[in-house]
Amino acid sequence: MKNVPDPLVTLTTDFGEDSPYVAAMKGVILTVNPAARLVDLSHQVPPQDVRHAAFFLAAAIPWFPPGAIHVVVVDPGVGSDRALLCIEVNGYRLLAPDNGCWTLAAGDAAPAVVRLERPRYWRHPVSATFHGRDILAPVAGHLSRGLDPRKLGPRVDRWTRIELPAPKPLANGWTGEVVFVDRFGNLLTNLPVDILNERPEGSRVLRVGGRSLRRGVRWVRTYAEARPGALVALASSTGRLEVAVNQGSAARRLRATVGTPVAVGQA
Amino acid sequence: MKNVPDPLVTLTTDFGEDSPYVAAMKGVILTVNPAARLVDLSHQVPPQDVRHAAFFLAAAIPWFPPGAIHVVVVDPGVGSDRALLCIEVNGYRLLAPDNGCWTLAAGDAAPAVVRLERPRYWRHPVSATFHGRDILAPVAGHLSRGLDPRKLGPRVDRWTRIELPAPKPLANGWTGEVVFVDRFGNLLTNLPVDILNERPEGSRVLRVGGRSLRRGVRWVRTYAEARPGALVALASSTGRLEVAVNQGSAARRLRATVGTPVAVGQA
Amino acid sequence: MKNVPDPLVTLTTDFGEDSPYVAAMKGVILTVNPAARLVDLSHQVPPQDVRHAAFFLAAAIPWFPPGAIHVVVVDPGVGSDRALLCIEVNGYRLLAPDNGCWTLAAGDAAPAVVRLERPRYWRHPVSATFHGRDILAPVAGHLSRGLDPRKLGPRVDRWTRIELPAPKPLANGWTGEVVFVDRFGNLLTNLPVDILNERPEGSRVLRVGGRSLRRGVRWVRTYAEARPGALVALASSTGRLEVAVNQGSAARRLRATVGTPVAVGQA
Repeated sequence: MKNVPDPLVTLTTDFGEDSPYVAAMKGVILTVNPAARLVDLSHQVPPQDVRHAAFFLAAAIPWFPPGAIHVVVVDPGVGSDRALLCIEVNGYRLLAPDNGCWTLAAGDAAPAVVRLERPRYWRHPVSATFHGRDILAPVAGHLSRGLDPRKLGPRVDRWTRIELPAPKPLANGWTGEVVFVDRFGNLLTNLPVDILNERPEGSRVLRVGGRSLRRGVRWVRTYAEARPGALVALASSTGRLEVAVNQGSAARRLRATVGTPVAVGQA
Repeated sequence: MKNVPDPLVTLTTDFGEDSPYVAAMKGVILTVNPAARLVDLSHQVPPQDVRHAAFFLAAAIPWFPPGAIHVVVVDPGVGSDRALLCIEVNGYRLLAPDNGCWTLAAGDAAPAVVRLERPRYWRHPVSATFHGRDILAPVAGHLSRGLDPRKLGPRVDRWTRIELPAPKPLANGWTGEVVFVDRFGNLLTNLPVDILNERPEGSRVLRVGGRSLRRGVRWVRTYAEARPGALVALASSTGRLEVAVNQGSAARRLRATVGTPVAVGQA
Repeated sequence: MKNVPDPLVTLTTDFGEDSPYVAAMKGVILTVNPAARLVDLSHQVPPQDVRHAAFFLAAAIPWFPPGAIHVVVVDPGVGSDRALLCIEVNGYRLLAPDNGCWTLAAGDAAPAVVRLERPRYWRHPVSATFHGRDILAPVAGHLSRGLDPRKLGPRVDRWTRIELPAPKPLANGWTGEVVFVDRFGNLLTNLPVDILNERPEGSRVLRVGGRSLRRGVRWVRTYAEARPGALVALASSTGRLEVAVNQGSAARRLRATVGTPVAVGQA
């Protein structure tokens, strides 16, 4: 086994699994650095849904080792004057449009951000509609070969930010919202689980989208504590309140989706 | 080229292609062993469908080289007291919940099975709902670095098994069922093709879900022997009876799905 | 870092993301050459749609570095007497059925084509229905280990070709058709953009499927020049006329699909 593993480049896009655009980006990265190890994160971000991308990256990127290079192409502004950025934060690097998709993942750490302005690291001619292939992919290849990010353009200190909506206090509890729905129909909210500790389980009231679920919901540590089909509330694997149906779909049961209000109160 | 290739870790889950959970597992494996080579088998196992996973793995795992590490997360029992296992069999290793998903792939070989009980090889804190990320992924990373599986926990000699339903003899033939439907709508059954050799093609009767297809079906060696749209019966690439429509969908034509009875008899 | 990167083998199939067939092919390649680096291009080519595969490959393959081996399994003729080919062209290699899927990607370059006829490089027994696993995958493994393609079988000088339909001249313009629809609903046509330069923007007429769009369409360099929801015409990232809706779907708006006629004329 060699001492230094080949450099890691991950890809997250909204191009879809059937897209030749993803394949073209992989080819461009490997042309600049044939030793790059590519890892697909997802190509199923809903088209141009920057908020979804932000949540996805926050749930994925922090698990990767330092040194990884993460390329993100969810770019409704392609061809406008939005900037493309190289971000160094928490030991890894991100290449992404300046639309805030990376800021949830970075959290409170202080990033070093550079605006991509040096065409010598791009593929030419640069198309007007596919900067992922023509700018981000070749830059990822060069970074993975050891290029200093400061060579990519000037340091900047402003960028677009996306924040999770903050939970709001109620007279006797907190209100938040669904921020992500996974494939199982589990509803992930923006309510930190320590909110739950403020009140005993017996007197908790959960409201999802206007429906009060006091009697219908069980507060559990894990899905399997409830019988199949039971509605449960628990701490998600990312530390926030999750509403689920054991072996079923809470999204369908409660007709809930991203943005549906969720409130925890006291009876 | 180096002498020893980087260790191979495959991933099979029911998380969906759009899932940050898959990405998080990849990150955890690569954090423990940055040299691991990840190979996606599928993330489209139907949610919590352990039988589907078992069939999928039986069709996929045996083709991999010895030494590969196969991580499987189809885990309806997460958070219950179901065990997590490390299985050594046929020269490869599997990490999976103890729900039988791996037993069809292992076949008749005698496996060495260890129950994962040593938290020192896990990621902490261990969440209640995502053991794929917090236990299986880091353990895969450690195994890929050469850790002896016996360090992971005690040897066990009982585990959950999934078996293919056995074909049953009829007065003049055999009855079985559809065990897998592929993307083309081809129906794979549990009937071994050598059953077919017992009777001459001209007198064979095929029944799918109660419909007798004696005249409508052609017995062929390959799809292309029949005209487009023809219903055919043939030996699948895994050695079992397959019912197909050349360049069409037998599942749609015959309204058949997993579990639909299939019988081969004599007129 | 080692001097010579591990050999690159890409995979393009119509098996679907949920298919154990893809996994089996990966296993066979890695069994022959454990050092191969696998890259998924797509497994979502519509079933047996050779024209789609041809367009996909033309948009993907040219971006890869020389030396890459591209395996393509879109094979409605499996089991017929169609040949399997190894093609060397533009510095890369393709393994594919002789159905023309690779000819758009190769373009005008002169390929060296060999017909696969040497069973010693195949997996045995060779099934009648899955030559991707039993012939193309092991041959890819051997090529990636340095095998000379001339050992695979005799050189041939005829093969099936797929061509893009050629645009046809009109009295005052050109007519072509939609050749690809991407996930965003953008319509890619076979009309080269230099056709547009023949006439001033103000007097251009665009017709899609019989509807004249003179007033409704904006001629832009990039999506972002128009307001969200606006219908635009522009040069695609592959140099052909593309019809799109900024942050929307032109396919849905215009009820257009592959084969829908597109004409550019003068008022």
